[in-house]
Amino acid sequence: MKAIFSLVLAAAVVTLAGPASAQFAKPEDAIKYRKAAMNLQAAHFGRVAAMASGRVPFDAKVAADNAAIAETISKLPWAAFVEGSDKGETKANPEVWSNAAKFKEASEKMQGEMTKLAAAAKTGNLDSIKASVGAVGGSCKACHDVFWKQ
Amino acid sequence: MKAIFSLVLAAAVVTLAGPASAQFAKPEDAIKYRKAAMNLQAAHFGRVAAMASGRVPFDAKVAADNAAIAETISKLPWAAFVEGSDKGETKANPEVWSNAAKFKEASEKMQGEMTKLAAAAKTGNLDSIKASVGAVGGSCKACHDVFWKQ
Repeated sequence: MKAIFSLVLAAAVVTLAGPASAQFAKPEDAIKYRKAAMNLQAAHFGRVAAMASGRVPFDAKVAADNAAIAETISKLPWAAFVEGSDKGETKANPEVWSNAAKFKEASEKMQGEMTKLAAAAKTGNLDSIKASVGAVGGSCKACHDVFWKQ
Repeated sequence: MKAIFSLVLAAAVVTLAGPASAQFAKPEDAIKYRKAAMNLQAAHFGRVAAMASGRVPFDAKVAADNAAIAETISKLPWAAFVEGSDKGETKANPEVWSNAAKFKEASEKMQGEMTKLAAAAKTGNLDSIKASVGAVGGSCKACHDVFWKQ
């Protein structure tokens, strides 16, 4: 079994320091991971937003599925803003670390709005979805404006 | 609301051709998306596998949470192996497209094993988790051996 682990996990070995906190082998791994999470989050939120804006026809099941995935993924990037990952291939601003409380607050605001969007999408009500998409978009932008080099 | 959409989604605009099939604006976007999904999948499966192999102490909740995330993400990469995304920054072998039925079968085998792992992790039984981690690892390797330039 160990041989299989080595093969499969060579690209993404992670270790855990304690039960609740995840650590990455290298800061670069944390940067790659959080970029991956942001990519997927934007892609799946984007599919709901495209329906909310009328760019693509509304399909309640597609909206609900994508909003649920976006909600799951919205919880992931934050554990990867680990110490030492402020350098390298990242557009994160130093404020992520120097103003960690505000960053946490902004990320939690977004997660809350994404949860509301997933709930709205589950009901299939397009007007609720539109309102929630706007709120998620606003919370993305508010955080990016401060913490992301655009 | 449209202004917010443009800002937020600039990095990952996706369009939908129909209700069930997702399309990416460019083949490169599909490649980036599926790499992102593979990264996250490996990271979260890796956290469970690390416990199964004894490299980190077993924590039932952490295992269950990570297995559930890995299960959700295991369903995502496949829609991104779109036409035209066989070139560029990808290690996908041509067989992904020339032997699409076998690729689908291999990817579904892995998704099935990941679902079993998530169920095992939910019960908190470490022996079941170990067996399921081995099965997932085997299905990853079987697919990578054929469809991935290692």
